[in-house]
Amino acid sequence: MTKNIDLSKENLFPVGELFNSENFSGQVWLKMLTQDPSCPVANVTFAPGCRNNWHWHHGGQLLLVTGGRGYYQEWGQPARELHPGDVVEIPAEVKHWHGAAPESWFSHLAIELHPELGPAQWLEPVADEDYSQLK
Amino acid sequence: MTKNIDLSKENLFPVGELFNSENFSGQVWLKMLTQDPSCPVANVTFAPGCRNNWHWHHGGQLLLVTGGRGYYQEWGQPARELHPGDVVEIPAEVKHWHGAAPESWFSHLAIELHPELGPAQWLEPVADEDYSQLK
Repeated sequence: MTKNIDLSKENLFPVGELFNSENFSGQVWLKMLTQDPSCPVANVTFAPGCRNNWHWHHGGQLLLVTGGRGYYQEWGQPARELHPGDVVEIPAEVKHWHGAAPESWFSHLAIELHPELGPAQWLEPVADEDYSQLK
Repeated sequence: MTKNIDLSKENLFPVGELFNSENFSGQVWLKMLTQDPSCPVANVTFAPGCRNNWHWHHGGQLLLVTGGRGYYQEWGQPARELHPGDVVEIPAEVKHWHGAAPESWFSHLAIELHPELGPAQWLEPVADEDYSQLK
């Protein structure tokens, strides 16, 4: 059992600021780590229970998990539990969400692939009745 | 003072295998974390004293430091000491090396940018008399 460290205060990479977005349920911190527009890398830190809405990327995305415990789920598939050291290669145009477990902090690096293809396409929130079944 | 953990045994990301390369002085472990050829991410783990030769990349490279203590140096510049959470954006075609401090383990993620431009161009080893002046 990993200690449930407050990753907004203690994190491998800089945490940045609270990120106010209608595309997330709960508190999330965002810090861009790079300046090169061809390979945007962000550190994303989710408070317990926080997750983003369903969305997809024109060029795909990489997640590199650095702390806590969370989930990644593709539409129509079971949720995959994530731990530090896990890597998720999200294919282009696949509808998905990611975020913290209900009672755990969670941090991942997020790398946008082929950002020249345009921004993420945001959809509806993850249904509470589905999220609440995750441990 | 951070504990000098053996990062080949205890590491945030998978360590992979010992990597036998004439382009490194010392023991290095390499693990490719991604399959997408457009964004190759590797976990690179250097034993104390290990560093790579001078080299440059056609499309640049990102380093994301995850453990230990090491250095990054561009040709003609002072070496920059690196710690967990540091990010290095290496410009295209800039001659440089990176690796562990003489007595510390060191790990970083390495992301090759614009890999379609071709492989790194490897040059001479870092001179022992220069490396040995680093702490």
